[in-house]
Amino acid sequence: MLGNSRIRTDLALEATESFAERETELRGVEIQEDYNEEKDIRTTIVKITTENGAKAMGRPQGNYITIEAPDLSASDEDYHREISEEIAKHLQRLINLDRETSVLVVGLGNQGITADSLGPLVIDNLRMTRHIIREYGLKSSGKEILHRVSGIIPGVMAQTGMETSEIIQGVTAETKPDVVIAVDALAARSVRRLNRTVQITDTGIHPGSGVGNHRNGLTEENLQVKVIGIGVPTVVDAATIVHDSMAHLLDTLEEQEQKEFLEEMISPNLYSMFVTPKDVDETVKYLSFTISEGLNMAFS
Amino acid sequence: MLGNSRIRTDLALEATESFAERETELRGVEIQEDYNEEKDIRTTIVKITTENGAKAMGRPQGNYITIEAPDLSASDEDYHREISEEIAKHLQRLINLDRETSVLVVGLGNQGITADSLGPLVIDNLRMTRHIIREYGLKSSGKEILHRVSGIIPGVMAQTGMETSEIIQGVTAETKPDVVIAVDALAARSVRRLNRTVQITDTGIHPGSGVGNHRNGLTEENLQVKVIGIGVPTVVDAATIVHDSMAHLLDTLEEQEQKEFLEEMISPNLYSMFVTPKDVDETVKYLSFTISEGLNMAFS
Amino acid sequence: MLGNSRIRTDLALEATESFAERETELRGVEIQEDYNEEKDIRTTIVKITTENGAKAMGRPQGNYITIEAPDLSASDEDYHREISEEIAKHLQRLINLDRETSVLVVGLGNQGITADSLGPLVIDNLRMTRHIIREYGLKSSGKEILHRVSGIIPGVMAQTGMETSEIIQGVTAETKPDVVIAVDALAARSVRRLNRTVQITDTGIHPGSGVGNHRNGLTEENLQVKVIGIGVPTVVDAATIVHDSMAHLLDTLEEQEQKEFLEEMISPNLYSMFVTPKDVDETVKYLSFTISEGLNMAFS
Amino acid sequence: MLGNSRIRTDLALEATESFAERETELRGVEIQEDYNEEKDIRTTIVKITTENGAKAMGRPQGNYITIEAPDLSASDEDYHREISEEIAKHLQRLINLDRETSVLVVGLGNQGITADSLGPLVIDNLRMTRHIIREYGLKSSGKEILHRVSGIIPGVMAQTGMETSEIIQGVTAETKPDVVIAVDALAARSVRRLNRTVQITDTGIHPGSGVGNHRNGLTEENLQVKVIGIGVPTVVDAATIVHDSMAHLLDTLEEQEQKEFLEEMISPNLYSMFVTPKDVDETVKYLSFTISEGLNMAFS
Repeated sequence: MLGNSRIRTDLALEATESFAERETELRGVEIQEDYNEEKDIRTTIVKITTENGAKAMGRPQGNYITIEAPDLSASDEDYHREISEEIAKHLQRLINLDRETSVLVVGLGNQGITADSLGPLVIDNLRMTRHIIREYGLKSSGKEILHRVSGIIPGVMAQTGMETSEIIQGVTAETKPDVVIAVDALAARSVRRLNRTVQITDTGIHPGSGVGNHRNGLTEENLQVKVIGIGVPTVVDAATIVHDSMAHLLDTLEEQEQKEFLEEMISPNLYSMFVTPKDVDETVKYLSFTISEGLNMAFS
Repeated sequence: MLGNSRIRTDLALEATESFAERETELRGVEIQEDYNEEKDIRTTIVKITTENGAKAMGRPQGNYITIEAPDLSASDEDYHREISEEIAKHLQRLINLDRETSVLVVGLGNQGITADSLGPLVIDNLRMTRHIIREYGLKSSGKEILHRVSGIIPGVMAQTGMETSEIIQGVTAETKPDVVIAVDALAARSVRRLNRTVQITDTGIHPGSGVGNHRNGLTEENLQVKVIGIGVPTVVDAATIVHDSMAHLLDTLEEQEQKEFLEEMISPNLYSMFVTPKDVDETVKYLSFTISEGLNMAFS
Repeated sequence: MLGNSRIRTDLALEATESFAERETELRGVEIQEDYNEEKDIRTTIVKITTENGAKAMGRPQGNYITIEAPDLSASDEDYHREISEEIAKHLQRLINLDRETSVLVVGLGNQGITADSLGPLVIDNLRMTRHIIREYGLKSSGKEILHRVSGIIPGVMAQTGMETSEIIQGVTAETKPDVVIAVDALAARSVRRLNRTVQITDTGIHPGSGVGNHRNGLTEENLQVKVIGIGVPTVVDAATIVHDSMAHLLDTLEEQEQKEFLEEMISPNLYSMFVTPKDVDETVKYLSFTISEGLNMAFS
Repeated sequence: MLGNSRIRTDLALEATESFAERETELRGVEIQEDYNEEKDIRTTIVKITTENGAKAMGRPQGNYITIEAPDLSASDEDYHREISEEIAKHLQRLINLDRETSVLVVGLGNQGITADSLGPLVIDNLRMTRHIIREYGLKSSGKEILHRVSGIIPGVMAQTGMETSEIIQGVTAETKPDVVIAVDALAARSVRRLNRTVQITDTGIHPGSGVGNHRNGLTEENLQVKVIGIGVPTVVDAATIVHDSMAHLLDTLEEQEQKEFLEEMISPNLYSMFVTPKDVDETVKYLSFTISEGLNMAFS
């Protein structure tokens, strides 16, 4: 859900990078990288294991998996299948799927704003199975474990008059899934990451951690079930781009000068602006297919 | 929600007509008509007041208000405003709006099927106020009573894997509205009624009473709050049309002949067919504006 | 293009059937059938070879190829590929593709009416090559002959203020294609044919031969190039269904009785009604993919 | 039509500003300003009257009318009506409407890209009259002059395989309008202008003058009729924003340093990025209504 925040990033990976630049090693933060050269897919797992690590990173303890694939927004079906498999693999690790599991997938964001429609589009392409298993009384066998998949597009507060968390709390209390997976469009700090990065985390969607104004978040704390977040950066705030482009240059100025300069340069207009790829309408569709295929693979 | 039912009608008015034809008077059923000649708007209120009346009509006790307006599907803004006002007036009678009321409007149906998208379109045009009143702590004054309006498009079971009633029960339990208003596309028995009739009832949406397969319905019984249903017939089942066209002719045949004839004539294919106006895409949009305007007027 | 006509059919095959029923053999009309049992695809080629045959059939001389496939509206990708190949095969026979050919594909119909949006959807999925071949000066080689594909969605007269034939005449005169292929949604006489029949003809789109009001048609005569028509029936006029259902029954009545009966029974309302499958929004999408794939295969 | 150009502006007004900053007066360029304080609408008319003026401005001779209205993207119907009237007034001045005139309106751009869909949306809302006047043989009377309005959405080259100019030349040659009006989404240099500026010019759409790759343009020269261009800036190239934000700062650097700095700072990625308002989907709809209303007012 893409909201009204100021300059920020939703990607844990980008947060670690600022430490990497300063060549600091962080206690309580483990980073593990895996690069598949043939497919050109880089997977980075950031584990925040202590309270201190969480503070340093500005993020709750948990696992943050980032899959980077340069051609994620290209229209190559085979390539997308690889990413879908990578997504499925990590979901299967984060969720224990050895026993029958009921999964509620939540497509966050505003369908009426292209860059924010990723979550809803994923739900459109998801294979729902919960109602079929219930209707026909299907049972898992030794060979195949049947997982019940359901999904919802809750809309955003301006469309519904309700907090997204209220809707999801209600539906969760009523349908009692074992795990909630929330899919969301994110804001990145760098244009380089747009539409080529998928972040999976088992820490839920945190209040203010996304670009949107999820004031209550979707977390294990408020839903009483495990919450997996899947996010893809589809925009950069326009002000961020200007800010970052000037960062090096600003280093040469005194602090007061810097402040004056920024106030003058970054016009208030910029804060209501997104930077998106020219072909965002098309890439958001490809990305949503890749993610829903990953989910379909993981649960069937 | 337009489902897979056989020949049927969702309109109480059409049910009374079959009695009217036989010149029967029904105990436990009061009918009151009002015709505004200038505007050519006919309003019929059917009150089912006893158990017997309910049985005879095949519908639960309660009020069924039918507004018929020949040009409802024309693109005349002023005319639509009259209908919106008529809708608002009846809603205000059915719901006690002298005190602050919280209303959850539910847009039933499938957005991907034009004739079934009426409910979702109404939500798109509704002015939500619940979140604003909560955020700014707005209070009603002597002059103006503030009603909290929220709305949701729950989708249909094939899209979500959940019963619509599960979703609405969850959201109702969490957000505690005083009344739920469910808007739905209906099937009519007669082509004459398509897109020119609005039915408002305080008996909720009953399992199997619509065309859809709401197996659990949206009723005061399962939601624990009053449920108002608003429906507009947008289709006729194709088999119904053939059936009704032949009805008079069939009267001349023996019963056995009738049966054989119908079995032969009404091909099984017809049961998966809708009859819709050629301009259904456009008329559904107009109708949804008229209804959402009626709701906007009623609550502000 | 689905217009305002009265009871009729756009399918040559349905016209031959009425003769078949009467066991008449028609001079000047050759019928050749081919049934692929494994794939359950039936192909019928009707050749109208004389002026008399044309009169009897109510259609101009030429080839009418009808591909019938019961599961054409199912979502089975492999099955659709077979139909696409069948379409490609017949196009390659009707058009001489041994030399470089420039093809203009015209997507007839109204994008805003689901049942009429087949033609525009086909253009959306077509691989255009004309501009690439021109830009890079690509040349055919011994191995591969390069055909230049272009396409246009002209809209309908109410949207443009122009006859479709005026637009296509203008574009044809300017871009000089060797052949025009016009894709259109048709009206069938029988519900059985809906969304399971593809008709390909080399006689163009004739004034009044479709459901639409193409008053001028798209023919070799007015475009000065060969015109192939591809049509899929997506609707039946509601009046047709009633008419046909009653036909047998009517045989028992005197002519005057018949007339009175029909006048009474088929309400004028019915003439502005379509009968469509409940899932028409989805099937039109599948069908358009199948046809655009057939075109893509034929020309590359 | 929003294409692949580098840093640039489509607005004549922005070109004059760079001169204004340097306090240069330009021969062959007349500027006339009009400010409606009550409505807060500023209209600037730039007339390029000589070959020299054209060279200095980098634009052909002719009239460039720019209407600036801060709340153009707000959803205030009355306010939009004022802008529509202002647009209508200037169109009536540029086109001689004292006699029956046939107008072809062309909606340039790609319907599949939100920021580029302004032109097509305008056509969707335009009242076409040409076919009605022709069909009913309507005649102008002393009181009312009937203008024939037609419109077309030609699509972009990647969708059609044809140059837009080829399509419009063909349609113009066939339907012989007296004037062509081409509506297009533009790129602005400054975020300030996005969705609050309408530019009307009688010089047509020039090759490379827009952001799109109209290699042949739509001009009186190639269409043989007068061409009016109406444009609204809906995007800024992302690289432009960074470039402009840094401009002042760069003044302090040596030229060589500037070059190195820019090469380093403006990443190649930025050149495929747009900056758009977060609510671009909604504002493009409002803007298209305002413009089509302006056209409707001008011609009826």
